[in-house]
Amino acid sequence: MSRHLQLGVCDYPEHTPESNWQSHAEQQKALGLSVVRIAEFSWAKIEPQEGEYHWEWLDKAITVYANQGLSVVLGTPTATPPAWLIEKHPEILPVDQNGIVKQFGSRRHYDHASDIYKEYATLIVIKMLERYAQNKAVVGWQTDNELAHEGTGQSFGGASAEKFPDWLKKKYGAIEALNEAWGTIFWSQTYNDWHQIKPPTQVATGQANPSHLLDYRRFCSDMVAQFQDSQIQLIRQHAPHHFITHNFVILSEETDLYRLAEDLDFVAWDSYPIGMLEFFATWESEETKTAYARTGHPDLISLNHDIYRGLKNGEDFWVMEQQCGHANWAQYNPLPADNAVSLWTAQAWAHGASAVVYFRWRAAHMAQEIMHSGLLRQDGTQDRGYSDVASLEPSTFSLDSSMSSGCEVVLLHDYQSLWAYNHQPHHQDLNYWRQFTMFYSALRALGIDVDISSSKNVDLSQYKLVVAPALTIFDDSVHELIRNTDPDTQWIFGPRCGFKDATGKVPQKGQFQGVQDILGVRQLNFDSLRPGLTQDVTISEGGLNKVFEAQVWCESYELEEGQTEYVYSGGPQDGKTAVARNNNMTMIGALSKPLTTEIMTSRLTELGVETEILPEGVRLSQRSGSKLVFNFNQQEIQWKGKLLSPVSYQFLS
Amino acid sequence: MSRHLQLGVCDYPEHTPESNWQSHAEQQKALGLSVVRIAEFSWAKIEPQEGEYHWEWLDKAITVYANQGLSVVLGTPTATPPAWLIEKHPEILPVDQNGIVKQFGSRRHYDHASDIYKEYATLIVIKMLERYAQNKAVVGWQTDNELAHEGTGQSFGGASAEKFPDWLKKKYGAIEALNEAWGTIFWSQTYNDWHQIKPPTQVATGQANPSHLLDYRRFCSDMVAQFQDSQIQLIRQHAPHHFITHNFVILSEETDLYRLAEDLDFVAWDSYPIGMLEFFATWESEETKTAYARTGHPDLISLNHDIYRGLKNGEDFWVMEQQCGHANWAQYNPLPADNAVSLWTAQAWAHGASAVVYFRWRAAHMAQEIMHSGLLRQDGTQDRGYSDVASLEPSTFSLDSSMSSGCEVVLLHDYQSLWAYNHQPHHQDLNYWRQFTMFYSALRALGIDVDISSSKNVDLSQYKLVVAPALTIFDDSVHELIRNTDPDTQWIFGPRCGFKDATGKVPQKGQFQGVQDILGVRQLNFDSLRPGLTQDVTISEGGLNKVFEAQVWCESYELEEGQTEYVYSGGPQDGKTAVARNNNMTMIGALSKPLTTEIMTSRLTELGVETEILPEGVRLSQRSGSKLVFNFNQQEIQWKGKLLSPVSYQFLS
Amino acid sequence: MSRHLQLGVCDYPEHTPESNWQSHAEQQKALGLSVVRIAEFSWAKIEPQEGEYHWEWLDKAITVYANQGLSVVLGTPTATPPAWLIEKHPEILPVDQNGIVKQFGSRRHYDHASDIYKEYATLIVIKMLERYAQNKAVVGWQTDNELAHEGTGQSFGGASAEKFPDWLKKKYGAIEALNEAWGTIFWSQTYNDWHQIKPPTQVATGQANPSHLLDYRRFCSDMVAQFQDSQIQLIRQHAPHHFITHNFVILSEETDLYRLAEDLDFVAWDSYPIGMLEFFATWESEETKTAYARTGHPDLISLNHDIYRGLKNGEDFWVMEQQCGHANWAQYNPLPADNAVSLWTAQAWAHGASAVVYFRWRAAHMAQEIMHSGLLRQDGTQDRGYSDVASLEPSTFSLDSSMSSGCEVVLLHDYQSLWAYNHQPHHQDLNYWRQFTMFYSALRALGIDVDISSSKNVDLSQYKLVVAPALTIFDDSVHELIRNTDPDTQWIFGPRCGFKDATGKVPQKGQFQGVQDILGVRQLNFDSLRPGLTQDVTISEGGLNKVFEAQVWCESYELEEGQTEYVYSGGPQDGKTAVARNNNMTMIGALSKPLTTEIMTSRLTELGVETEILPEGVRLSQRSGSKLVFNFNQQEIQWKGKLLSPVSYQFLS
Repeated sequence: MSRHLQLGVCDYPEHTPESNWQSHAEQQKALGLSVVRIAEFSWAKIEPQEGEYHWEWLDKAITVYANQGLSVVLGTPTATPPAWLIEKHPEILPVDQNGIVKQFGSRRHYDHASDIYKEYATLIVIKMLERYAQNKAVVGWQTDNELAHEGTGQSFGGASAEKFPDWLKKKYGAIEALNEAWGTIFWSQTYNDWHQIKPPTQVATGQANPSHLLDYRRFCSDMVAQFQDSQIQLIRQHAPHHFITHNFVILSEETDLYRLAEDLDFVAWDSYPIGMLEFFATWESEETKTAYARTGHPDLISLNHDIYRGLKNGEDFWVMEQQCGHANWAQYNPLPADNAVSLWTAQAWAHGASAVVYFRWRAAHMAQEIMHSGLLRQDGTQDRGYSDVASLEPSTFSLDSSMSSGCEVVLLHDYQSLWAYNHQPHHQDLNYWRQFTMFYSALRALGIDVDISSSKNVDLSQYKLVVAPALTIFDDSVHELIRNTDPDTQWIFGPRCGFKDATGKVPQKGQFQGVQDILGVRQLNFDSLRPGLTQDVTISEGGLNKVFEAQVWCESYELEEGQTEYVYSGGPQDGKTAVARNNNMTMIGALSKPLTTEIMTSRLTELGVETEILPEGVRLSQRSGSKLVFNFNQQEIQWKGKLLSPVSYQFLS
Repeated sequence: MSRHLQLGVCDYPEHTPESNWQSHAEQQKALGLSVVRIAEFSWAKIEPQEGEYHWEWLDKAITVYANQGLSVVLGTPTATPPAWLIEKHPEILPVDQNGIVKQFGSRRHYDHASDIYKEYATLIVIKMLERYAQNKAVVGWQTDNELAHEGTGQSFGGASAEKFPDWLKKKYGAIEALNEAWGTIFWSQTYNDWHQIKPPTQVATGQANPSHLLDYRRFCSDMVAQFQDSQIQLIRQHAPHHFITHNFVILSEETDLYRLAEDLDFVAWDSYPIGMLEFFATWESEETKTAYARTGHPDLISLNHDIYRGLKNGEDFWVMEQQCGHANWAQYNPLPADNAVSLWTAQAWAHGASAVVYFRWRAAHMAQEIMHSGLLRQDGTQDRGYSDVASLEPSTFSLDSSMSSGCEVVLLHDYQSLWAYNHQPHHQDLNYWRQFTMFYSALRALGIDVDISSSKNVDLSQYKLVVAPALTIFDDSVHELIRNTDPDTQWIFGPRCGFKDATGKVPQKGQFQGVQDILGVRQLNFDSLRPGLTQDVTISEGGLNKVFEAQVWCESYELEEGQTEYVYSGGPQDGKTAVARNNNMTMIGALSKPLTTEIMTSRLTELGVETEILPEGVRLSQRSGSKLVFNFNQQEIQWKGKLLSPVSYQFLS
Repeated sequence: MSRHLQLGVCDYPEHTPESNWQSHAEQQKALGLSVVRIAEFSWAKIEPQEGEYHWEWLDKAITVYANQGLSVVLGTPTATPPAWLIEKHPEILPVDQNGIVKQFGSRRHYDHASDIYKEYATLIVIKMLERYAQNKAVVGWQTDNELAHEGTGQSFGGASAEKFPDWLKKKYGAIEALNEAWGTIFWSQTYNDWHQIKPPTQVATGQANPSHLLDYRRFCSDMVAQFQDSQIQLIRQHAPHHFITHNFVILSEETDLYRLAEDLDFVAWDSYPIGMLEFFATWESEETKTAYARTGHPDLISLNHDIYRGLKNGEDFWVMEQQCGHANWAQYNPLPADNAVSLWTAQAWAHGASAVVYFRWRAAHMAQEIMHSGLLRQDGTQDRGYSDVASLEPSTFSLDSSMSSGCEVVLLHDYQSLWAYNHQPHHQDLNYWRQFTMFYSALRALGIDVDISSSKNVDLSQYKLVVAPALTIFDDSVHELIRNTDPDTQWIFGPRCGFKDATGKVPQKGQFQGVQDILGVRQLNFDSLRPGLTQDVTISEGGLNKVFEAQVWCESYELEEGQTEYVYSGGPQDGKTAVARNNNMTMIGALSKPLTTEIMTSRLTELGVETEILPEGVRLSQRSGSKLVFNFNQQEIQWKGKLLSPVSYQFLS
């Protein structure tokens, strides 16, 4: 691979008359692109009838790209099993939460647990490998496409329902162990035998046992991982010289991504900054959504970059699909601002991308994505994003060192905590991502580059500050991690840390036992604040009270060791500790961005890490010795004597 | 038929003790009514057991009306198949979007595609015809009732699912042609055989292929039309001297109404002005909904009148059900204002009605419509609408000439465009009706009477201005229509025109190719503006910039011929053409009522059509040489030296 | 039983290591508790396999409580049939409105109509009785738990669907009688045979016939009652010396509670003041919800107390589950204010409670209630509610006389009216409880203690004022009740009284016939006011017009006898009577709290009942010669020279 950022594009030769292929490839080359991803939805084109393979079109398409020096990434086409397969084996279709079978006609209409489907998937992947493993133009493979996206991570019937009991049996050995782990003594949920256990849906009232929900998440996550594993093994075997990656989605949460990334060479993700804010960030205000409607919010985008970089311990990743014009799937789909595409590209690099692949080359003329844009319009003319890409000089984006090498702060992230948090949010507008993002964003607004790592198997030696924004589940590995930390490393814990153990239950000694043992503080109460309810948090400084307003969530503590830093003022937790510190450990119980910012600043200053209060919408990142400033505002910003153009980036060094 | 407006009423003798019939008919006569519609839900009363017919009650009821000189319109009772039929043939029940069978107990519990149901429907219609074809009091027939209303236009299983493949086979001949037309190459949707194709629902993610959705709409529309056809044929055969009509519903969109109206003698529709605004006009603000809560919005009501008049090329139509008190089915069901019923009646006539039939005579004592009003209360006393009706003098509403004869402006409307638009709105708050209504309302606020016609087979020779507010689909007939237009005729196109061809795909040459060929403008981009985002549109006049604010949707153009009239100022389309003109063709790319009004005014002035800016809630209409002014405000309005009473109409000439 | 308020707690020894039992019981005793409720979800613990019973744990737990002098209330464990039973008899599972079977995994996963389930329920209850009927520590039984809660009152398939036709046959005798009663002549709904009749769901359009809905409610209510009856009979037979009660839920409306309470010794209910306001009071403003977020609204809480006291003609009741910290099931679950638990306890007593049992002793470590609090935290420390309870002195709350003995005002309540009202609300934001609460709250804000009684079999001799806030259905018993009332007793009727008769239809003489005959007023119209629409109601006093603003609903009347008190001013009912009076009968047609308050004040003054305008959030109650003032505000209130602390109560006498 080249030592600077690669640009590429997703292309669909099967959507385009063959007469255009040559000129398209020439234009791609001329635009400075060096890689194309293709074929990930082309099963029915390759194998229109069972056992009848058509390779000519794909051979030819690859040759056309190769002739322009473009490298090809092939997608295994398993995200879209063809009609003949569904007709023959309708039992591979997934089942929704109401027990209704989902149908053919879009994407991901299969149950990951289906052995029948895995057989067919194996066969088509082998056939592709046999054909292209030795093709010189092909450099790597993308497994499937956006695994488990759009609610397809869990099937609530069929093969999944059949396999779940066995998975549980393997995990627990004895049914008594499962009953203990799930706390089935509650509401007479005790099971006598494995086969009595069903997917946790359609229960008569409210929702199912959260431990049941949690294990079903784990089981389905395993099914997705095993589904991918079988493809990875095939590719390794047939094409050991090719890389293997997968394109994850925005704030993906259906599976344990650390597990899914394990055997990939590097990870990739699909970045749609505008829909990310509009559709995913349900907690953001209308004002924020409008202000960033044409750029996306810088922190949401980089949060994803940092998560995906962290899946492989800070190694470079790819953006496999980069929005380069309007998308079509959010509630509203405005045009990106001028220069947004180049801004997003530079930001991706600054956060660790080694390749940015735009989606897609030419806008589709058919089917579900008619209203989605590409670098070319449907009429073949260059769309707005094209000139943005043309303006980029890839050689300025060096890959000499990884982005993570400079990070002094790490945030711990965990999919099991995410599931447990979101199964019992205790507040209608609160979820794991909202809390996590608040901590992340506070750091980013201080100019800090951060890593995001799994709480398991992470090496903390590089970091001065470790932040656990929402680590709901404390299992043994978390305890060990904290206990073995260097005493010079500071820790900050957000609310709801350690509420549960790995079973999803609360330890006998209490809801916060995990934290209590370590911090020497006992958690007293948590308060779920409805909209309109706020809570003051105060600190006495030089005889004056400094007041912060908390919203949504407030926990209080009783100290067995250490000091109270901030207390609640007024309300049911009046006078109680809101922020506790015990040497290098700090626990923040209240959701308040200004408060969090103040504490972060204080700790970072102690640690000798420089902070800087950045203007709204302005962010800093460093990579490979370069420092960049990004302006996501649509207005010009005066900053430290510099003029930052609207929607722009500058190298500061 | 008499040469002035007829008044009538919907009556349900089967709901009323026989002892009341005589006095009710006498009161109807005394009130000036001349027609009653009856029997459209009376199947179970006529045929309580299969093959056992009870005609005495209906014979007698008709005689009672006839004795008072009232004409009778009979409804075929097929909207409500009886319990014994559902018990015998549950397979005629329709299936919802989740694959769940809908049940007996309300209305329209049948699949229009069911041959079994059609047999039974045929039998009951024949029986009624045998009994009443020669009855002197009977003047005509209403087929079924509100066909396809309330989401019953499509059944997603059963007979419809069975017949869809055959319908497709007949349309496309070869499966390859269907695959090409639907663009099934996308996401490996390619079909090998017709029987693999199912109704487009329950797909695993997002929604089905829009071409699949579009053809299913067409198929279901055909099924409804064929269902009605069989009844029309029977009536023609047995009662050639009787008229045949059907009562369509507010903004009906489930079927292609031009097709459904083809073989009717005239069309009718059911007008409920208050619920129309409250329930259907989802895009209207709370302020508008409150201001017109007791009258409905004048433009929404007349939009329906004009659509239904246009179904039969401008011929007079009936209002078969006219709200005459509170209804019961909207979110809120306020009382109409004083005089609203007479205002609605006069407006109906002014827009082409030849009869207004009130719903209903006496309020129901039972079942689903207990909370709905009639001209009489349930206690038999006269309700508020009664005096409104009594105040009308039908002879002042002459039918000497049709309303359409005076129209110089026509709006083109198309159900296939409506479906295609609404399947992919690209903006959560946008739909076909919202956009269509904006153009319509702009013209009405300028005092212009308009026709609304199908884009197919329309004769444009009468019109000076043709407006295509939302003609998403440009098929060959649209191209031909535009090309063959008189060069003195002006055209105005709204946004999203020509996005698709008849397949629902985009032509190879691009999304807007249909328009581009004709207007000499190339479409550049479209912008879906979230709430809070606005876009300035400007024109330079005498060195000054005049600025209009657009919302929701903005398209830009590049001109190959013609002139830019308005440009975007600021935002991603800054400097690009917002409104293009090429001789007699104008394309408006931005949704902005003031901008649209200005352009309409300009074109109409060029064409020598007088415009007049009317006050909010005041509207003008002309018919048969008369000019009327309507005041839908609940306040008195001073207008051109006249005092317009609250909720009133006046003949100006 | 002691002659003062008993305190108790719900405990779950099966959730707690046995090693804690002794110390827990000791703490309970020390806290002043005298009763524990246990075992209501413990079926699987007692009978882990069919026919295999484990009593040792329960024997021991009861002994531990007994040793501390605590009385034990046993719940029959039938709310949670175990997994082995569901596996053996899946046909006992209930069916939802879409025909989908609900599954095991939470609570109340059974169809009350299932004979199979009743057999198993009978068996486990007999076994418990055989074991504990003679146990000295056991004082009484709770049947099942929160019967029919959370939408489990109706099953729309299975055993319920099978039994419904027979129930109807028994009620109506002949199918013709049912057809007449339901008005099936409407829309050809006529049934030929009983077996054609299904649960009223999944109808093709809109909703089912309201008479069908009403009878299905009655049927399901009977099924629930019969299900409970069988348990009551068993307990009476085996443990005649024990009391029998049931814990009803907040604003329970699925069943006819008067029927369910009939054979209980006393009733109980489960009081969660905070979720009550947040979740149930859908009509309350955000401001109100925020203001009372930490205490609940005083009138909502006492409304429930008064309803449940009224189920047994004013006899003392229990609060079987009293919130004593944060709950976990509302949209937001804030901490109660300091002293809220003692305030709620005192209020419960003042409204007729003889025992307040807190939920729960120690917070759960497992399953669905992990986020719910108890008197102890999960770590065993005392939570905030503990000290609130400790501060109470039960002996100050005497049970010498019933609360109802002092009531001079009664509100009539009826579940059939509630169902009929809510099946056809005619206004999206209106329901029975909203209207009922407005009348109730107006009285409470005037310092009036009220009874709430069934409109059937009530003895009115005690009352000076009878209020029928929302008695939609007037059957013969209501007519008789009104006709036989003492002429010195005043009556006030709210809107929508007498809209229907017992069939759910309107009487032939009209919608308001029931009221008309009695009041001598004829109802003219009702007006459903959308948000933003208001209606003035005026009275002329000393030449000046006093104006009240009504919202949501306005009815008008024509008087045959009596006087108009208030008239509408403006709007479609301008000049019509809004409030009519005929001697001791008053009908209020407009929803307006100030208007209602004025009329209440006027009638009470006439009757010699003292009223007093209380500050917002302050309430008065009297019991056993004591008068208490409650301050539900979180601010100190100055009232009549007294200082009322935030969230507090005081004995005034």
